Amino acid sequence: MNSITNYKEITSKYISLLKIEKTPNELYDPIRYILSLGGKQLRPVLTLFSAEIFGTDYKKALYAATAIELFHNFSLIHDDIMDDAPLRRGNKTVHEKWNINTAILSGDAMLILAYQYFENYEPKIFKELAQLFSKTALEVCEGQQMDINFETRNDVSVSEYIKMIEYKTAVLVGAALKMGAIVAESTEDNKNAIYNFGLNLGIAFQLQDDYLDAFGDSASFGKQIGGDILENKKTYLYLLALEKANKEDKEELYNWFSKTENNGQEKIDRVKSIFEKTEATSATQNQIEIYTNNALEILDNLDINTKHKNELRTFALDLMNRSV
Amino acid sequence: MNSITNYKEITSKYISLLKIEKTPNELYDPIRYILSLGGKQLRPVLTLFSAEIFGTDYKKALYAATAIELFHNFSLIHDDIMDDAPLRRGNKTVHEKWNINTAILSGDAMLILAYQYFENYEPKIFKELAQLFSKTALEVCEGQQMDINFETRNDVSVSEYIKMIEYKTAVLVGAALKMGAIVAESTEDNKNAIYNFGLNLGIAFQLQDDYLDAFGDSASFGKQIGGDILENKKTYLYLLALEKANKEDKEELYNWFSKTENNGQEKIDRVKSIFEKTEATSATQNQIEIYTNNALEILDNLDINTKHKNELRTFALDLMNRSV
Repeated sequence: MNSITNYKEITSKYISLLKIEKTPNELYDPIRYILSLGGKQLRPVLTLFSAEIFGTDYKKALYAATAIELFHNFSLIHDDIMDDAPLRRGNKTVHEKWNINTAILSGDAMLILAYQYFENYEPKIFKELAQLFSKTALEVCEGQQMDINFETRNDVSVSEYIKMIEYKTAVLVGAALKMGAIVAESTEDNKNAIYNFGLNLGIAFQLQDDYLDAFGDSASFGKQIGGDILENKKTYLYLLALEKANKEDKEELYNWFSKTENNGQEKIDRVKSIFEKTEATSATQNQIEIYTNNALEILDNLDINTKHKNELRTFALDLMNRSV
Repeated sequence: MNSITNYKEITSKYISLLKIEKTPNELYDPIRYILSLGGKQLRPVLTLFSAEIFGTDYKKALYAATAIELFHNFSLIHDDIMDDAPLRRGNKTVHEKWNINTAILSGDAMLILAYQYFENYEPKIFKELAQLFSKTALEVCEGQQMDINFETRNDVSVSEYIKMIEYKTAVLVGAALKMGAIVAESTEDNKNAIYNFGLNLGIAFQLQDDYLDAFGDSASFGKQIGGDILENKKTYLYLLALEKANKEDKEELYNWFSKTENNGQEKIDRVKSIFEKTEATSATQNQIEIYTNNALEILDNLDINTKHKNELRTFALDLMNRSV
């Protein structure tokens, strides 16, 4: 039995050795390129770890783990076009290095390639994996669309926001874990429980990302504090503050978030003070704790041995107490 | 047993009644829109017909037929972005009616939806269908990339061109037919034979499209004769003429194909005379006949009843003697 850290090494090595020896190169070079940039590879690690937890050799889950990572990278290629992002993992995005058409077509091919990795499993498992994969992939598209819609909407509720982050990011964490359980042919109860563990942890992580962007420690967070505020991003903090603010504070928030010029520290300080005053800050911390505790409670009821439970618990707590 | 004409009605009705009742609308409206534009729906018709030919009720093949049509429309949405095409089936393309980001994301969702239609089959058939689908979809992407590469290459061989049209269009015709045989649980020999029938017929059809664009009857072809020549499209006729031309004619061809202004009838006449002089015209007709005959010969060896063989033969001959 390996620890999470070992799976990171195994995954990183496996993905880096992945040979996608196909032509034309104009189609497959961008795929090889984005995979070569590495990244956290959190999702495939979770698939391998989950397979072991539910009693099968992680090696059996390598194909499913690869499919998940290919899908994640496909979605990055297409999202980066939509966001007009110049950089990914400190390097040029695919549409910047090549062009938009290449990024569209290579992304498409990468999504199809992901499905092909499931072909290594026998029909019953293949179908279960592909079915979960399609459901999840469609939800990720729906989450991305909700996110796009929110940019131009002024009436986004916090519950809609939770639905958006659930679809855009958390379902894939849940699916990555569930795939390990499917490959291990675990019980339906275990499959659903580990999925919900991932889903709750994914939402907690994303909310914490919003929180740290405004209230994190700049040295350990690694980005400028207040970046979301300067970009007028409708984060959980912002939407919650709007719901709780009095007329005056609401107007001030709207006002700050209608400015596109860089107003620097004053804007950050004023908006953060409204986050505090409306108790959006403490309510967000509270929500993060609720989702984290949901995840941990699900763990308690999982039918796996104590050692594995403890490892999952440690993983969850590490992720949530991350200084980055 | 229905005839091909009846399947056209069945398919058209089935697709028009397809309810994709999902949200957010911003993601699914473009999918409902492109499906509402109809189109020839040749591929799903072939899937239904093939299922009946191999001894099963066409109704069993409706899900696979829908998946094929969804895939085809997904590829049109993304190709239209790449080609910057304003119109599709006489209506605005998705990226024109909405925008490029919507066309990318809705296209992605449509590809995933296609996979989901196979979930209606039991695991063994599901896997066989999804596997053929992924292989074919990836080939279509590769064909599209080859086509893009050819635009800026001056050394495309006729055999590369055949490979491109095989991947970009013919494999999907083969796959549509094979899916009917898979749903009908026919023999491996029959599955492969009907695939190859579709593949050869698809290539013949595409070559004929090149031929008719230069030498068809303008009234029945429905487009301006010589459109490909005016657009400097590297068709089979052009590539063959280049391979067969003497130095002088080759230079004249290169010269005409380097002009982007509209040189009208003179350009068309001169280029067509080189097609004739180099015997590219007759060689192209010859190739069309060879691929059509290949398809018909495969039919002869198919293990199906004579009535069905005759219907497939009539279908193939109708398609190739089409006046449009």
